[in-house]
Amino acid sequence: MAKGHERSITPQSEDFSAWYNELVLKAELVDRGPVRGTMVIRPYGYRVWELLQADLDRRIKETGHQNAYFPLLIPQSYLQREAEHVEGFAPELAVVTHAGGKELEEPLVVRPTSETIIYAMFAKWIRSYRDLPVLINQWANVVRWEMRTRLFLRTTEFLWQEGHTAHISEAEAEQEALTILEIYRRFAEEQMAIPVYTGMKTDGERFAGALRTFSIEALMQDGKALQAGTSHNLGQNFAKAFEVQYQTREGTWEHVWSTSWGVSTRLVGALVMAHGDDNGVNFPPRLAPMQVVIVPIWKSDEEKSRIAEAARLAAEELKGAFRVKLDLRDEVSPGWKFNEWELKGVPLRLEIGPKDLEKDQLMAVRRLDRRKVPVPRAALSARVASLLEEIQKDMLEKGRAFLRENTREATDYEQFKRDLEEKGGFFRAHWCGSADCEKRIKDETKATIRCIPLEGNREDGTCLRRDGASRRWVYLARAY
Amino acid sequence: MAKGHERSITPQSEDFSAWYNELVLKAELVDRGPVRGTMVIRPYGYRVWELLQADLDRRIKETGHQNAYFPLLIPQSYLQREAEHVEGFAPELAVVTHAGGKELEEPLVVRPTSETIIYAMFAKWIRSYRDLPVLINQWANVVRWEMRTRLFLRTTEFLWQEGHTAHISEAEAEQEALTILEIYRRFAEEQMAIPVYTGMKTDGERFAGALRTFSIEALMQDGKALQAGTSHNLGQNFAKAFEVQYQTREGTWEHVWSTSWGVSTRLVGALVMAHGDDNGVNFPPRLAPMQVVIVPIWKSDEEKSRIAEAARLAAEELKGAFRVKLDLRDEVSPGWKFNEWELKGVPLRLEIGPKDLEKDQLMAVRRLDRRKVPVPRAALSARVASLLEEIQKDMLEKGRAFLRENTREATDYEQFKRDLEEKGGFFRAHWCGSADCEKRIKDETKATIRCIPLEGNREDGTCLRRDGASRRWVYLARAY
Repeated sequence: MAKGHERSITPQSEDFSAWYNELVLKAELVDRGPVRGTMVIRPYGYRVWELLQADLDRRIKETGHQNAYFPLLIPQSYLQREAEHVEGFAPELAVVTHAGGKELEEPLVVRPTSETIIYAMFAKWIRSYRDLPVLINQWANVVRWEMRTRLFLRTTEFLWQEGHTAHISEAEAEQEALTILEIYRRFAEEQMAIPVYTGMKTDGERFAGALRTFSIEALMQDGKALQAGTSHNLGQNFAKAFEVQYQTREGTWEHVWSTSWGVSTRLVGALVMAHGDDNGVNFPPRLAPMQVVIVPIWKSDEEKSRIAEAARLAAEELKGAFRVKLDLRDEVSPGWKFNEWELKGVPLRLEIGPKDLEKDQLMAVRRLDRRKVPVPRAALSARVASLLEEIQKDMLEKGRAFLRENTREATDYEQFKRDLEEKGGFFRAHWCGSADCEKRIKDETKATIRCIPLEGNREDGTCLRRDGASRRWVYLARAY
Repeated sequence: MAKGHERSITPQSEDFSAWYNELVLKAELVDRGPVRGTMVIRPYGYRVWELLQADLDRRIKETGHQNAYFPLLIPQSYLQREAEHVEGFAPELAVVTHAGGKELEEPLVVRPTSETIIYAMFAKWIRSYRDLPVLINQWANVVRWEMRTRLFLRTTEFLWQEGHTAHISEAEAEQEALTILEIYRRFAEEQMAIPVYTGMKTDGERFAGALRTFSIEALMQDGKALQAGTSHNLGQNFAKAFEVQYQTREGTWEHVWSTSWGVSTRLVGALVMAHGDDNGVNFPPRLAPMQVVIVPIWKSDEEKSRIAEAARLAAEELKGAFRVKLDLRDEVSPGWKFNEWELKGVPLRLEIGPKDLEKDQLMAVRRLDRRKVPVPRAALSARVASLLEEIQKDMLEKGRAFLRENTREATDYEQFKRDLEEKGGFFRAHWCGSADCEKRIKDETKATIRCIPLEGNREDGTCLRRDGASRRWVYLARAY
């Protein structure tokens, strides 16, 4: 379904936002749906989600969680049981008022998140301390009527996983929320090649209904932060709203302590924004729908048959172990193919031309930096494996360097405002802890406190916004 | 979360329907959701769906299809573009009228199936014969406001896969629909151990908007048929409604030919109804969430530590290759455990008691028929593998025999009515082809034409309902 390169895309340096919007469409990752703010995830983009999902699902299961599925439609009254929760979500709800040809007695909400319906079920299932912990995860679609949308990053409907767990104590719930945060951090680094900061959200940025929210925060190439995953310790708020109680070993009844946590199709957008360049997308090998593309290069018909055959055999050999595309098209030139697969972010290209054939080799080209590496034909599989691993590692290192270089100390408010405007990135700054200072910074600079690190940030200092004493520093950034 | 066996379930012979409804709840496969007709798929039931999904997804991808994701919410006007389609689905629609705190200008339908939104996108993506075929599949939730619901078999919301493809010719679309039918048939037999009849639906039972509908039809143990998967040749109906055209090699413009096809969470219910018995569910090994349960049997504390250790080592050995549960609970007896795992349908139980330890063996017990097979400890993994394969095979053979024994010739209408009432099952009967006869049979007996076999049913005869000439026989049954 590729339509070729009718037009190039806006360079990042000119308009990052336009670059992103044009690229995700042109690389055929996604398309706009007919309803405002919705997206169609096209096969190439959906494959990224599948790869991401498969690995994260494994990590979630390895830590004892099981998948389940809860209904899409939730009685409106459920949402109202937890006061902060309904206040947070009410403006974004899509509501079913008619069904089966009749007006419903009670309107139904299309889930914006599933806490309410899940805790209603937990109340039925949990009776005793023996039933705990309950460790559940769900892969599902959710709908939130957002004002400003952007493909993958913020859409009216998106896909995600939402974990929901119930525990015997606050300490155990806190531990669970942090275990998940660490799973997300490692997933982002190991699979997505995106290093992140982790920490706690301020009260102003907490999930509606949570005691504490933790998040992983990534840095996009335009210097804006992206919240890439959140994990909430919900305390007993939902347990109380839905009467989820268990009988203790001693025979008394207690409310459970619970958590919820999620990542979404937003991560596909994060991959594009963190690694892409003016030539297109650049997927890390572990999540690339195609890891290797083989492009034969011939000038004569005589060359063609020999080279095509060599390319076919190479593809055949690699097929079992890697996601390989063999591009034998006749109607476009090798250069055109190079552009197309760079646009689509295939991490490794293998060229094979007459000289390569003579030398019994293929020429590997890394999408990351176009570095060329001759690969002896006899060592093909082993070398492709190591090249892909190197690329994965180099992408993470590059991301780490970028994050490091774009994390600045901010001690002077005016200097901070200038740096924020000119350079963007994260700022390590002292904050006195007052909601007032947080709000003023946001209003005056559009930067928010992305997270309060959990370790290593205890330090006496002065609040960035005013002269108040501060005992800790936090990460600030403008964010998506 | 097991609550134990507070009460036994109604026997199949007494009330099959009550048996089913009680069993799916008691085995913790599913629970009722708060909204009428919805279900919560609990972890144990969802695991079956995941296993089923993984295998079917592989088969779908092997035949060249790619997954994608289209929006849940569809503009109401889209549904109206294909006349038969809207007539078929209008009574079952759930409609979003309000979102983001406002009444919407155009109401949105929660997808009951995705043809309309997918063809709207195909119209954007398809331009040339080079873009064809488009072979797409989607795993998604859909909502249909059904009057009478039953857990898994017919629910307001269900999960399914829906394939949607576009082709250059009617012949190619027909071939696609039949390829999928064959995938479904083999999947049902090879994974679910459920043999099926395949064939074409009559015009009266066609999918709303299709040219031809094909289906696989299974037989439940109460003698009722269950449509377990459908595949539709949509002709050019949707292509015309959504203006999906392509430019031919010759430069003219043509509408594409398309198909759609799906199976749903209904299949989990089919597994219960096809294989279960008065002791509980009975999963075929390939789809069993737990394939093997190890139950140690001890009488003294001295025995206990040795036997528990042996059981642990056996579980450890099997864990890599099989889905194994080690049941070391102290508070319930071995007999209680046997009942619980029979209820949950674990195909193979491995008992290990003092005598087994002496003989350096485990005692395997097949859920299917409680046949006991001693397994030498040294050959454990290999014997478990072959036992599971045998069980899978035996379950299919048993299903085949059941289908054969419950498929009867019907030549006399009165005899047919008596047999239908007393024995149920499928009837091989001649049908003249008139919608009138079909309707009368349905009104008079509640039996419907399940399918018209594609091969081997050409034969001169007399219509079951009237004295008209018939050139072919069909399968009739009462159905879910």
